[in-house]
Amino acid sequence: MRFDHVGVATSDATELGTLFVDLLDASVAHEETFDGLRIRFLELDGGGYLELLEPVDDGTIARYLDRNGPGIHHVALATDDVAAALDRARDLGIELIDEAPRPGAWGHDVAFLHPGSTGGVLVEFVEH
Amino acid sequence: MRFDHVGVATSDATELGTLFVDLLDASVAHEETFDGLRIRFLELDGGGYLELLEPVDDGTIARYLDRNGPGIHHVALATDDVAAALDRARDLGIELIDEAPRPGAWGHDVAFLHPGSTGGVLVEFVEH
Repeated sequence: MRFDHVGVATSDATELGTLFVDLLDASVAHEETFDGLRIRFLELDGGGYLELLEPVDDGTIARYLDRNGPGIHHVALATDDVAAALDRARDLGIELIDEAPRPGAWGHDVAFLHPGSTGGVLVEFVEH
Repeated sequence: MRFDHVGVATSDATELGTLFVDLLDASVAHEETFDGLRIRFLELDGGGYLELLEPVDDGTIARYLDRNGPGIHHVALATDDVAAALDRARDLGIELIDEAPRPGAWGHDVAFLHPGSTGGVLVEFVEH
């Protein structure tokens, strides 16, 4: 298991992306519109990503922004086997948002855990 | 610049640390009480840390917990030169919390940027 990215909810992924590219000497590694979100992945030159999430509909990130304002939304850990990571979470009694891996942004398999089970931290498992 | 850690505000760093060690196959890399906080650094076997922050006084993390509940508090990027990173931030018009590097947890030099300038994301620079 290794750190993959921090997901950030924002109302403007273009503007914030430009700022972080300049601030962190990062590069834009991937952009797409997926699941009602305009998504920008920024890659740090030394490793790790920031995923900027801008809602284009009134889904969960739009509601998150309304409720909490912009900021860090989740942390994603990369694994070679999301299904096994979910099994381990299940064995620990952690409530799952996704009972099985599902297609996520950038063509990766992903699954989220319920933050109520993990100290308020929204944890994503991702398999590249 | 590379990902270093995600800081997590919690009312119980021991309990949450045990959960994350089991969930993420992490190990406890460092523990200390510093600046009114009981701090546990968990190291992922593939790279990156989680920093669990439990208040032992009524400082900023206690107030954060009162206001927001437990969860992700900040993201830290490692650099070989925090002062240069701060200069870059200043040049971009970003408001700084720390105008110069200061001693942080684990004996590292750290500096924080104001989240109002960085899309609601509390960014820390850290130099090991």
